Amino acid sequence: MERIIAAVILLLFSCQAAAAARAGGVRRPPTLARHYASSSVRRHRHHVTAAGDASDGGVSVAPTVQYETRRYTQRLDHFNSLPASYATFQQRYLINDTFWGGPAAPIFLYAGNEADIDLFTNNTGFMWEAAPRFRAMLVFVEHRYYGESLPFGGTREAAFRDAATNSPRATSPLKANLSAPAAPVLVFGGSYGGMLAAWMRLKYPHVVMGAVASSAPILSFYGIVDPYAFYDRITDDFKREQELLRRASEVVGRSLRCARNKGRPGIAETGISVWDIPSLLDNAVAEAAMTDYPTPGFLTPLPAYPVRSMCRAIDDRQTPAASSSSGNEYGNSSTTLLLLPQQVRDAMNVYYNHTGAAEDDDPYDGWNWEACTEMMVMAYGVRDGSVLPPSPSNFTDVVDDCRKDTGLPPRPFWIETEFGGYDIANVLKKSASNILFFNGLRDPWSTGGVLKSISDSVIALVEPKGAHHVDLRFSSKDDPEWLKQVRVKETRIIARWLKQYYSDEGIAT
Amino acid sequence: MERIIAAVILLLFSCQAAAAARAGGVRRPPTLARHYASSSVRRHRHHVTAAGDASDGGVSVAPTVQYETRRYTQRLDHFNSLPASYATFQQRYLINDTFWGGPAAPIFLYAGNEADIDLFTNNTGFMWEAAPRFRAMLVFVEHRYYGESLPFGGTREAAFRDAATNSPRATSPLKANLSAPAAPVLVFGGSYGGMLAAWMRLKYPHVVMGAVASSAPILSFYGIVDPYAFYDRITDDFKREQELLRRASEVVGRSLRCARNKGRPGIAETGISVWDIPSLLDNAVAEAAMTDYPTPGFLTPLPAYPVRSMCRAIDDRQTPAASSSSGNEYGNSSTTLLLLPQQVRDAMNVYYNHTGAAEDDDPYDGWNWEACTEMMVMAYGVRDGSVLPPSPSNFTDVVDDCRKDTGLPPRPFWIETEFGGYDIANVLKKSASNILFFNGLRDPWSTGGVLKSISDSVIALVEPKGAHHVDLRFSSKDDPEWLKQVRVKETRIIARWLKQYYSDEGIAT
Repeated sequence: MERIIAAVILLLFSCQAAAAARAGGVRRPPTLARHYASSSVRRHRHHVTAAGDASDGGVSVAPTVQYETRRYTQRLDHFNSLPASYATFQQRYLINDTFWGGPAAPIFLYAGNEADIDLFTNNTGFMWEAAPRFRAMLVFVEHRYYGESLPFGGTREAAFRDAATNSPRATSPLKANLSAPAAPVLVFGGSYGGMLAAWMRLKYPHVVMGAVASSAPILSFYGIVDPYAFYDRITDDFKREQELLRRASEVVGRSLRCARNKGRPGIAETGISVWDIPSLLDNAVAEAAMTDYPTPGFLTPLPAYPVRSMCRAIDDRQTPAASSSSGNEYGNSSTTLLLLPQQVRDAMNVYYNHTGAAEDDDPYDGWNWEACTEMMVMAYGVRDGSVLPPSPSNFTDVVDDCRKDTGLPPRPFWIETEFGGYDIANVLKKSASNILFFNGLRDPWSTGGVLKSISDSVIALVEPKGAHHVDLRFSSKDDPEWLKQVRVKETRIIARWLKQYYSDEGIAT
Repeated sequence: MERIIAAVILLLFSCQAAAAARAGGVRRPPTLARHYASSSVRRHRHHVTAAGDASDGGVSVAPTVQYETRRYTQRLDHFNSLPASYATFQQRYLINDTFWGGPAAPIFLYAGNEADIDLFTNNTGFMWEAAPRFRAMLVFVEHRYYGESLPFGGTREAAFRDAATNSPRATSPLKANLSAPAAPVLVFGGSYGGMLAAWMRLKYPHVVMGAVASSAPILSFYGIVDPYAFYDRITDDFKREQELLRRASEVVGRSLRCARNKGRPGIAETGISVWDIPSLLDNAVAEAAMTDYPTPGFLTPLPAYPVRSMCRAIDDRQTPAASSSSGNEYGNSSTTLLLLPQQVRDAMNVYYNHTGAAEDDDPYDGWNWEACTEMMVMAYGVRDGSVLPPSPSNFTDVVDDCRKDTGLPPRPFWIETEFGGYDIANVLKKSASNILFFNGLRDPWSTGGVLKSISDSVIALVEPKGAHHVDLRFSSKDDPEWLKQVRVKETRIIARWLKQYYSDEGIAT
């Protein structure tokens, strides 16, 4: 059993490795990020995914979530023979075998995103709720360079600083042994984790027999999607609340002018410049659109339907309950935001009362690094008439900024070269099976999702009212009927894949 | 067009990169190789593939073989962000567009093996003969670290010596642009090139729409194949000539005893030790079995059916015509071989009169490096009663020797972890299409081949009388009927794939 898990972790790592932060020559980015607002906006936009997944809050963990923390001695980089690549680190994974039915029973594997793995473990309720029915083992693997899975001594600074060194280290032989693992492995993931899950099934079908890829924007790359599509969708989300939004853009515009006219480039106490305000607003608005869930509290104490809440705050008709009495819990940003009119502050605090807005200023942030080198997801352009101030898409600038930030030439075509994307239907029809793509159309990332079923086992589930990987959340008595049905469909599809697997392998069940 | 080729070369490189010599910490191997004969045997066995493909000879090139030599500025290593990986080198490719039917017509791509690309270009007659019928462009891409595609200044010594350095170099942005290439790309390869072709279709189905993988032992890895299978097959090949072989093993055994008893560890003029004789014999015997072609002269002036010729030579009934009058063309080995009785010398010279046996003593040899780090193909054990002296399979020793040779921990499970191999039928049935596996059963490498068709587009063609990628050779008026039929079948399968492709893509033909 340990061997199977070791092999799976190795392979998951390999899959992540192809898309993720490498043992690279990271430099502290030049201090360009705040020179002009649009650059800062872009930096924060890179972070949209990370913030959505990574932010922690005071939400209680479901009582079913019980796991053991283990660590696997992982090779730093499998894809070359440089001596430094043989260095190892401790990759963390969380495991629960309470429900497991033994050697031929399935292993449900979560492909860790760009944050501490316990966040995804605690919030991917669908896996916890499906495990007893399928007698599945649950394994949640942390993405290297995040959480506690940090090479080079365990601190993030050391990990990135030393990443370019080449000194020989103690090595250990590869322990993976794939000899006839009877247990089918099914990989799950949401957002970036969903991309990893889909790509893992594409690249390692001999290791994982299926993938549940929720809100995985595998097509959100240069030349495939419209660069304005992401913010167009956000605007549409807010426009659904058009009545409430009536005065919002005026208020935002006035607020920004007001803030800029004060001419204060930075506020010493917070370290946040007025030039950051647009990106803070951007982040809050995008985040609300992504997590526009029908029930409150995904990772954070966000209210249900946060887009509506934000519109209401801007409209000054109602202050959201979640932020009304939490003045002393405001993050760093709130001091700055006092420069803005009360309505905008309240709107932004629907999001920022639980996150640290300055978080992604960390030059060693793994996601910033990934987003500037390989995972250059397309969410850049804001059209005139959008809910946010217009910002023309200029990918050349993005590439230039990233080159300055990381000190390395960005590779905007790498993901589509390595994993594909063009002509996706014909390619997946011929060369893929057992992938389930869920997308909620309120989620701006659905603009890069696979929205049409491709074959009888490469299946797209699309939900007009759905937000970012809402299907993977714990169920709730308040869930709308469409959400309940999505989970029923997903469970049935998984059951069908497993039945086929046992039949193909000649395993009696 | 250039963009498509650039993208294809990039991807081919990526595919090779996953299995091939890396920008690694190569050291000159310790001088252990000759300490004992079995180690030397193993070293030479690593080289069986390389010798089979790489050796040049005096065979004339077919007049249809006309190409232009081009070079592509290639990134050293796509799979990490170390500054040194952004270094570039000139990857050579040979191109012919004489027959090409324009933007929607196919591109036939040869995935270069472990040698100069012109060898494969000159000898893969099947591609040249099929090109006019399919109006195909022909592109033959050289494997990096072989031929003229050498990083770090163009000499092999410098390439390997500097491979571990980490100094920043001039870099160039990635130029690949895959936007909707109308031209279907079909990848071909024989032997290791066939493995690369199959793996490229598995990993990059969005880039190549099909693969012709001839004599590709993708299952010849530890834990999948019987380690004795390779030499068992060779023994079977020679036993088919049992009458001729009657006295051969006695003669070989006596010869070796005789050579060893002379107690001369090395011969200054040639640099070849008597301890190398077993491996030279091994190489000659294995090579003859692999290239037991019905017609003479693949790469070299080998006679038709060299196994029979060698048996005859050993049996002292007949000296092969090919070596009878070429005394002054003997390689380095021939001086040593004079220590052996005339029959054995003649037998070995059926092979060695055209190759330099000492070639694979080069510590910078790319194949030795690959075979000791990742491409650890299983062809080790020789049973009692085989045509060669018995040599128990002891993979632990192999791994230990490789560790000493390369200075790096070998990764015997890496290929099957990265590319699969267990449960191959079920995996490829679900996740692969458009792969044609040819195997000839006289070829010992067929013991690691895919020998059964898996689906209607993952097809195995198996020919009992066939040898190593005999299907890819130029046709000849002397070809037996079964060989003609193999090529007809392959041509029909390719035509079917292309028809399906144009139909799927909505391209009128």
